[in-house]
Amino acid sequence: MCRFLVYRGQPGYVADWLIRPSNSLIRQSFHAREMPEPLNGDGFGLGWYGDGDDPTPCVFTSLTPAWSNRNLRRLATHVRSSMFFAHVRAATAGSVVSEENCHPFRFGRFLWMHNGQVGSFRKIKRQLRRSLRDDLYDHVAGTTDSEHAFHLFLQQLEPVRARIRAELARDPDRLRRYREQFFDLLGSPRDKDRNGGDFVDRAVEILGEFDGDTLESALLETIARLARWSAEADSESSFGNFAVTDGRTILATRWTDDPDRPPPTLYYSAGMSTSGADGRSAPAMVISSEPLDDLHDSWHSVPPGHLLRVDPDWTVRLDPIEVPATA
Amino acid sequence: MCRFLVYRGQPGYVADWLIRPSNSLIRQSFHAREMPEPLNGDGFGLGWYGDGDDPTPCVFTSLTPAWSNRNLRRLATHVRSSMFFAHVRAATAGSVVSEENCHPFRFGRFLWMHNGQVGSFRKIKRQLRRSLRDDLYDHVAGTTDSEHAFHLFLQQLEPVRARIRAELARDPDRLRRYREQFFDLLGSPRDKDRNGGDFVDRAVEILGEFDGDTLESALLETIARLARWSAEADSESSFGNFAVTDGRTILATRWTDDPDRPPPTLYYSAGMSTSGADGRSAPAMVISSEPLDDLHDSWHSVPPGHLLRVDPDWTVRLDPIEVPATA
Amino acid sequence: MCRFLVYRGQPGYVADWLIRPSNSLIRQSFHAREMPEPLNGDGFGLGWYGDGDDPTPCVFTSLTPAWSNRNLRRLATHVRSSMFFAHVRAATAGSVVSEENCHPFRFGRFLWMHNGQVGSFRKIKRQLRRSLRDDLYDHVAGTTDSEHAFHLFLQQLEPVRARIRAELARDPDRLRRYREQFFDLLGSPRDKDRNGGDFVDRAVEILGEFDGDTLESALLETIARLARWSAEADSESSFGNFAVTDGRTILATRWTDDPDRPPPTLYYSAGMSTSGADGRSAPAMVISSEPLDDLHDSWHSVPPGHLLRVDPDWTVRLDPIEVPATA
Amino acid sequence: MCRFLVYRGQPGYVADWLIRPSNSLIRQSFHAREMPEPLNGDGFGLGWYGDGDDPTPCVFTSLTPAWSNRNLRRLATHVRSSMFFAHVRAATAGSVVSEENCHPFRFGRFLWMHNGQVGSFRKIKRQLRRSLRDDLYDHVAGTTDSEHAFHLFLQQLEPVRARIRAELARDPDRLRRYREQFFDLLGSPRDKDRNGGDFVDRAVEILGEFDGDTLESALLETIARLARWSAEADSESSFGNFAVTDGRTILATRWTDDPDRPPPTLYYSAGMSTSGADGRSAPAMVISSEPLDDLHDSWHSVPPGHLLRVDPDWTVRLDPIEVPATA
Repeated sequence: MCRFLVYRGQPGYVADWLIRPSNSLIRQSFHAREMPEPLNGDGFGLGWYGDGDDPTPCVFTSLTPAWSNRNLRRLATHVRSSMFFAHVRAATAGSVVSEENCHPFRFGRFLWMHNGQVGSFRKIKRQLRRSLRDDLYDHVAGTTDSEHAFHLFLQQLEPVRARIRAELARDPDRLRRYREQFFDLLGSPRDKDRNGGDFVDRAVEILGEFDGDTLESALLETIARLARWSAEADSESSFGNFAVTDGRTILATRWTDDPDRPPPTLYYSAGMSTSGADGRSAPAMVISSEPLDDLHDSWHSVPPGHLLRVDPDWTVRLDPIEVPATA
Repeated sequence: MCRFLVYRGQPGYVADWLIRPSNSLIRQSFHAREMPEPLNGDGFGLGWYGDGDDPTPCVFTSLTPAWSNRNLRRLATHVRSSMFFAHVRAATAGSVVSEENCHPFRFGRFLWMHNGQVGSFRKIKRQLRRSLRDDLYDHVAGTTDSEHAFHLFLQQLEPVRARIRAELARDPDRLRRYREQFFDLLGSPRDKDRNGGDFVDRAVEILGEFDGDTLESALLETIARLARWSAEADSESSFGNFAVTDGRTILATRWTDDPDRPPPTLYYSAGMSTSGADGRSAPAMVISSEPLDDLHDSWHSVPPGHLLRVDPDWTVRLDPIEVPATA
Repeated sequence: MCRFLVYRGQPGYVADWLIRPSNSLIRQSFHAREMPEPLNGDGFGLGWYGDGDDPTPCVFTSLTPAWSNRNLRRLATHVRSSMFFAHVRAATAGSVVSEENCHPFRFGRFLWMHNGQVGSFRKIKRQLRRSLRDDLYDHVAGTTDSEHAFHLFLQQLEPVRARIRAELARDPDRLRRYREQFFDLLGSPRDKDRNGGDFVDRAVEILGEFDGDTLESALLETIARLARWSAEADSESSFGNFAVTDGRTILATRWTDDPDRPPPTLYYSAGMSTSGADGRSAPAMVISSEPLDDLHDSWHSVPPGHLLRVDPDWTVRLDPIEVPATA
Repeated sequence: MCRFLVYRGQPGYVADWLIRPSNSLIRQSFHAREMPEPLNGDGFGLGWYGDGDDPTPCVFTSLTPAWSNRNLRRLATHVRSSMFFAHVRAATAGSVVSEENCHPFRFGRFLWMHNGQVGSFRKIKRQLRRSLRDDLYDHVAGTTDSEHAFHLFLQQLEPVRARIRAELARDPDRLRRYREQFFDLLGSPRDKDRNGGDFVDRAVEILGEFDGDTLESALLETIARLARWSAEADSESSFGNFAVTDGRTILATRWTDDPDRPPPTLYYSAGMSTSGADGRSAPAMVISSEPLDDLHDSWHSVPPGHLLRVDPDWTVRLDPIEVPATA
């Protein structure tokens, strides 16, 4: 199993959560406390959102362990972000350690991380892939259950994306604004077919907005589908944590279909943080596989079978994950 | 030989210089025009300064070629900077391709890049190292002439740094400000001896300021020493370009001691750039081994035997490099 | 496009073909002559067969360019082999440079390399995958057309493998010999279920033998299927070279469905080589994207639309590749 | 601290010691038993001697952890050797994780590994380097105390090497045999100056033979010098294990100058091994930081302050390490 970390709050150096706390994610990469095997040395990744106009995150991944990677250390001490995902990986036995298999995974404006396993993944892989539309099918680059689950989640958003595309087709002004914003971001005058329609798919990936309810439904449906397919395929259990964001809403789950074992731990710490610069306070939220320090009062456990949701307006909810029994 | 690029100007995406121009540095990594061997595939590096309080740059280096490195592509399209150094390497025959040998090299607030060769480097390496004080001697991590030349340059600044340290010892208020600023940057309450004096060396590395004349003298003295040692050791010629900055002043040289061959090319393009956001114009300077596009009027060649200097106030000078003849 | 090299002959240091010839594969990695773009710096691979009992090859792959990889240089100057495949990659635009995408690909006793493209690959990927049985479907680790084509080839061998499995089920003595040989190779007393039937699939992968006609039919059928699917999907042409071996028979193709352009070059050089040790001569065969030296008489071009086959007894054939017109 | 493994015996698959034992070196890379910190994930290396004429070993090193490196797994299951060194690294705090810093280190026919620390290394680095002749000075590629200690050891052999060179200068027949053997190994007719004298240095590196007493004296003198310099510089203690071979004699030490703490563990297991092929028995020796299995009777501890020596004729000695007190 892996360890991960989500931060949203005032812009701060990534190192303040990744490196400096007593039980930082870097420390968890070689000394995780709350897992039987304390080692997460099979690659890592960091994905962060900037404060400019670009709604897509930057992602840095690497195969060498997080604890000794100099690029990571330099980035973490220089990159400031108000929203980032970080992940240290412990590859499942038999799973390939490759850069394509490092979390967080990215698609357009979305980031996705996973800790745990999708039960009977090898047996349900064909079904899962079959359910994906072509661009998502082609976008899968690695071999993990995690990345496949991400694309299944993205597939659940397809109806909304299709609706946005249809609206754009009917609204030339909005289409023009999309086009301008999209090519401002891409910045290149040499991208072919600026005026054609082909950019729309990619623009909607990046610019399309989703409300929290839509995202939550998509994630719950993803879990339900995986559970149903796994149950049909085999008795191997599923368990784990998913974390996903579109750069605005954050969702994180703690779930298993195994009645005999609790799902992997997941904690969150919500509070106010004070900016060094001007002394103003602002809300902050950290979600983490393990508490980052020993201030036990400040860390809350996400209850088993629940989904934690942080909306753009800082509303925080804990919703039960209901997976319908297989017929 | 290698290719490099320096940018200073309005904050912009690194990709706008590294990737998008018709003769971008990425293109030069596999199709350099102005060198006999067009390939620069032996690793690369990017160093950039942020817009916050931290005077030190972030550095990202990698061994795989720049043209296919996904982390580089993602960073270049997401990182915005008003000052960066980028370098693609063609290792000299026999030289080791390793991450330690990737440019730009960093020390405190300084970045350094090199294209070319220090004549008879293997023969003068002992002399060069012997001239370094302990912390610089220990800081050399790789085996290139480039990195050694950088440390020789840093050694030339030692008298100034010693003066700053002496001033701090006499001025408790300034020392206290240094300490505060330093630990704000490092951010960790667990660094030992916050109150002791040991932090001063490192703080001066990061916070010590140098005027352009001091830096220029140090660079000219570095070239003169290398030339003198090389001449004493052998008849192998030196040629190349150095680029160095403390995040404020930029220096770049085009020099050789070979009377029969011109030194490697070096171009600069100075002008006004218009910000997309608010339409305001501001000065910009690009220094590059090759012009980034075919707009020939906008690119000026640094004359052989000259040093290009860009001061913080945008004063641009071209000074001749005078190396005293060996006695 | 990529460059590749096949050697079969007396045991010799890999470096004698990979590094030392004037137009060695390493040289082709940065200076290929017979391709518009001379650079093959997107990873490489070497697969070789030992002289012991193990019919499976060893594979070494890496992402850094072949010309500077020290592990490759050390292996090539120390590993002696009587049969090896080597490949330097130039990733197609948009294709991912990853270790999973490095050639040669391995399955059981087979090695596979590819240079060129499968037309309209993205459009036929679902069909291709659907045609694979589960273990082959799961074995695909990367995203290239090359690796997918390999698995399609392996799928064509499934009827023969199924026959071998059926024969084993009826012949306990042969099954026992398979088991012994298999576990001798794997060497571990801790592999579960030594006595069960589960090892049979994997044992047949490694120990199953195929005659040259079977392999040739499978490769021709693979090309025909790919051509049919591509033609159905789109007008994008296919072209390239495949090379495959089971450690005994070697097959290499030069083919395109584009009537207007010849397929990528492919050469072979067959002759006698003299062993340094005892002065005895023995047959040798080199198959290569480009001649390794300027001894033009010794290099023959594989004619377009032909398959070169080298049988274990050194019989060499050139057979036309007939792809039935799409109905 | 690191873990390492030495094997000499009948040719066998490296995996039989590296991967398959219950406490294999791979397992020690993430679960070492006899060290406070069980993790050795900062790169690894494997060096092995072939059974042909080449007295130099092949070395494979990598930065990613041993437990997940596919190249290592493939090599270990395919390479058979009668003498190899393997090492998994735990970088000292502050030490750089780079390929140049991976063990085993090679020079000509020698391999060297280290586990532990040279006391006050940073303070004695200048002295150590100053004592090296030019080719050894230039050959240091990394920054570890381990590699520097290796070059100090090689420097102790310089008088013997100088004697061999002198003998060659007086004995044209022997020089001719050296030349032939050397260029047979290098294999290239294009190496310049086959007839000149420049190859002699490199030939002696590779072909020069040393008896066990000479090697043992050199290693003891290396330890004594390091101890003397460390004592002069500081009170930081030295402790650890060195292992070195020229492909014939093996030396391994267990030593510290700290009277209060035993040096890191070191075990050996000597016995007869039976070849699977022909049933013949032959001597075998494994030296390892930790026993590879729980058969406690078969593993002997090297006593603190002792050097284990295995001669080419299988004579095994345990000699005390006497370090003269500093004057």
